[in-house]
Amino acid sequence: MQKRIMKNKNILQACNLIIFGTNGDLAKKKLLPSLYQLEKKNMLHNDTKIIGVGRVQFSKEDYIKMVYQSLKISNKKNIKEVIWKKFNNRLSFYNIDINFPSQFLKLKNIIEEKEKIIINYLATPPDTFKIICDGLNYSNLNNKNSRIIIEKPLGKSFITCKKINNHIKKYFTEKQIFRIDHYLGKETILNLLSLRFANTLFINNWDNKTIDHIQITIAESIGIEGRWKYFDKIGQMRDMVQNHLLQILTIIAMDPPESLDEDQLREKKISVLKSLRPINYKNVLKKTVKGQYTSNIIQNKNIKGYLEENEANKKSNTETFVCIKANIDNWRWYGVPFYLRTGKRLPIKYSEIVIYFKKPKINLFKKSLIKLPQNKITIRLQSNEGIDIQILNKTPGLNNKDKLQAIKLNCTYSEIFNYSYLSDSYENLLLESMIGIQKLFVKKEEIEEAWKWIDLIIEAWKIKKQKIYLYPAGSWGPNKSLLMINKDKRNWNNFNNYQKNNL
Amino acid sequence: MQKRIMKNKNILQACNLIIFGTNGDLAKKKLLPSLYQLEKKNMLHNDTKIIGVGRVQFSKEDYIKMVYQSLKISNKKNIKEVIWKKFNNRLSFYNIDINFPSQFLKLKNIIEEKEKIIINYLATPPDTFKIICDGLNYSNLNNKNSRIIIEKPLGKSFITCKKINNHIKKYFTEKQIFRIDHYLGKETILNLLSLRFANTLFINNWDNKTIDHIQITIAESIGIEGRWKYFDKIGQMRDMVQNHLLQILTIIAMDPPESLDEDQLREKKISVLKSLRPINYKNVLKKTVKGQYTSNIIQNKNIKGYLEENEANKKSNTETFVCIKANIDNWRWYGVPFYLRTGKRLPIKYSEIVIYFKKPKINLFKKSLIKLPQNKITIRLQSNEGIDIQILNKTPGLNNKDKLQAIKLNCTYSEIFNYSYLSDSYENLLLESMIGIQKLFVKKEEIEEAWKWIDLIIEAWKIKKQKIYLYPAGSWGPNKSLLMINKDKRNWNNFNNYQKNNL
Repeated sequence: MQKRIMKNKNILQACNLIIFGTNGDLAKKKLLPSLYQLEKKNMLHNDTKIIGVGRVQFSKEDYIKMVYQSLKISNKKNIKEVIWKKFNNRLSFYNIDINFPSQFLKLKNIIEEKEKIIINYLATPPDTFKIICDGLNYSNLNNKNSRIIIEKPLGKSFITCKKINNHIKKYFTEKQIFRIDHYLGKETILNLLSLRFANTLFINNWDNKTIDHIQITIAESIGIEGRWKYFDKIGQMRDMVQNHLLQILTIIAMDPPESLDEDQLREKKISVLKSLRPINYKNVLKKTVKGQYTSNIIQNKNIKGYLEENEANKKSNTETFVCIKANIDNWRWYGVPFYLRTGKRLPIKYSEIVIYFKKPKINLFKKSLIKLPQNKITIRLQSNEGIDIQILNKTPGLNNKDKLQAIKLNCTYSEIFNYSYLSDSYENLLLESMIGIQKLFVKKEEIEEAWKWIDLIIEAWKIKKQKIYLYPAGSWGPNKSLLMINKDKRNWNNFNNYQKNNL
Repeated sequence: MQKRIMKNKNILQACNLIIFGTNGDLAKKKLLPSLYQLEKKNMLHNDTKIIGVGRVQFSKEDYIKMVYQSLKISNKKNIKEVIWKKFNNRLSFYNIDINFPSQFLKLKNIIEEKEKIIINYLATPPDTFKIICDGLNYSNLNNKNSRIIIEKPLGKSFITCKKINNHIKKYFTEKQIFRIDHYLGKETILNLLSLRFANTLFINNWDNKTIDHIQITIAESIGIEGRWKYFDKIGQMRDMVQNHLLQILTIIAMDPPESLDEDQLREKKISVLKSLRPINYKNVLKKTVKGQYTSNIIQNKNIKGYLEENEANKKSNTETFVCIKANIDNWRWYGVPFYLRTGKRLPIKYSEIVIYFKKPKINLFKKSLIKLPQNKITIRLQSNEGIDIQILNKTPGLNNKDKLQAIKLNCTYSEIFNYSYLSDSYENLLLESMIGIQKLFVKKEEIEEAWKWIDLIIEAWKIKKQKIYLYPAGSWGPNKSLLMINKDKRNWNNFNNYQKNNL
């Protein structure tokens, strides 16, 4: 297997992977289990070490026990003894108080292995990034062989994000900085590049000549889950739109790159962000809807409303739902709206992209259908992953001359691929960071452009005192979201036009 | 149900349907069972009568018995008493020697019902068409309310076809003549119009800018089945290409009509035939392959070769397989070859159309695939009816960066429609002829243009003494057919490139 990777010119490198905050949720639930999976798949270099760093007073044995516990919880299947043995040999732990740069010198073994790649994974809150960077610098853990991985939320506005970026920039070059948006590690997101650029059927139809509009939805079924204090200052716009939704939008909308080179790809994405039409106080009321969920009884269970959570400030205006009509003012997309939608406590957890094609210019079938339903491609990113195309077909039967019916050509990945397609996005991202390829990571300019666009909306909300519309937990968001898209004579995909109109 | 048809502006009319040759195979296996099905579906006008005509000395009772027997054989399910009672009341029989025009006067009851539609269905060999027409004329069965239905083979060349057409034209106007190609009654063929003209995704991609080539295959698994004497004079070219294959080709290639009007549709089809590039003695060797099957053992059964049939002329050069590279020299299709293929004793019975799209102009994935497989749409006309689209998708898995895999988005009609989609094409055709709509019937000019193109090929075969290539029964035809398409760096669809290349 290691040989195969060599063939792909992606060479596994021996790394010292330092996980700051190794006792936190991200490390325990995602990073350590993903590293174990990489071990299982023989995708860790034999000399790679995993170094936990935390405030707790762990002995090496304590740490190993903790890791084992984390793996046991996250692995529904049992842990294989052989693999665990190998994995366990990689582990060590250092107790460091990050407030004291000199403490970083405890990592001296690592610092001395000069030729080995150092990966500093900051699985800690963003307010620690500054002092950790200072410490890394103090102890030369930012040498030319080192990399740093940081994850959202990178600030909560353009300015705060830039501040973090600038601070890190003092100690690391852009090539050394790996900003994670874990959506970029998902198989179905990675697949978007293949779908878009390996298929003539899509390449030739991907513009305002043939596409009517595009919908992107990320629906969450969970609520705030004890994160009220954090979330109330952030809101759904910063929590989901600024990163995941805009990432999907840029991949769907970007111009075809001339190669899959990491810089090319990210440049093309940035230019989409730069072409996003600003939403400001002049148009914000038309272009956005804010929502907040209220209590409801779902399957005989009482679900609390957002304002009924323990820590809630009862007057909070923070949105748990947002939908946006975005426009991209470039040659490819002028005139094609992108409807974005995301919310918590929606009926199901799923993400999808739906490409609606324009209607045929002439309706030959108007006797049976005054309005021809549109062709549409649905890319199902999460849950029931796959892709389908809705086309119109003749309704069979003698009595159905020229009568049409919408049918779906479908492919569900779980039916054709084995379970490997479900590998966690952190496996992808950790592997890429260890190989040193930045394709799946977010560039400074990219994240800053996203913040600029988002900031303007949030500011406009304040200026216009934009109303927050309530929706019962378990519904598809406020009615107002439906009105917004209905005004354009369109409808959200999940409202199942098809069944309603009984074509 | 009768009301519903009224709503569709297709009005059921009371008819006297006269079936000449009512004791023959076509009538017994197809027409009478289809009429019974129409009865069952309440799609015969209450006053419609079915009049059998034949040389046999049947009493009315004999005839009814014969019909009942035919229905029993063709209907796997039992015949419903209520429906049979209604159907049986429509039946009568006349013994007529068609050589004597005066005998047609026996049908005087019919002739006297002046306002009723008369449909003369000539389910007899083509050499009888002339005298039957004479008899119909003698007895005024060709009045303004009458129609005539004839079926292939309409001649065996342009001249012989024109002769039949001209003779019939003496007694009937073109609006009264219904020429059957039973393929036009198949649900999956009817559906081609909906697929092509109701779906932007197809409308926008249906030309030489996006399509690389098109393949049309009609494969038969049966051999000659005792029709040697007939078939040996005809061959596969006249038996299948001139009618069914060219019909499919014209529907797939026609320019979009401005309406579904019968004349419009047929005009557009004719203009495809007129644009077919002639295949003559100069290019016939490159553009066509003739084959003939030899004996083989299939599943422990000895299958006779074509020349081993009882009645065989051992030196026969008649083709049981033919493939053609056709070109359409119009704006839409210039440069896009249509590969046509049909044969007897092929491995399975099926018909399909495959649309191959051009490859993406730039291959971003050349590290994993030097040649990107093409997108293709397969329209499965017979057996496992449905449609699928092959696209490229990322191979899931960590080790598969930018590695692609062909997958199929599929829709199989039997999974979404009930069995009504399997209604026999004769049901459609009889119904249309009784309503008086010619959309599904072949116009004089259409059939004559087809013959002109076919004649030239057959003549060229003679001039160049084109070799006939042998193939074992149960194979995909002669190797030479594969060489013909391979020369263009393409392959027949069923050779399963995909599995071979192990993408």
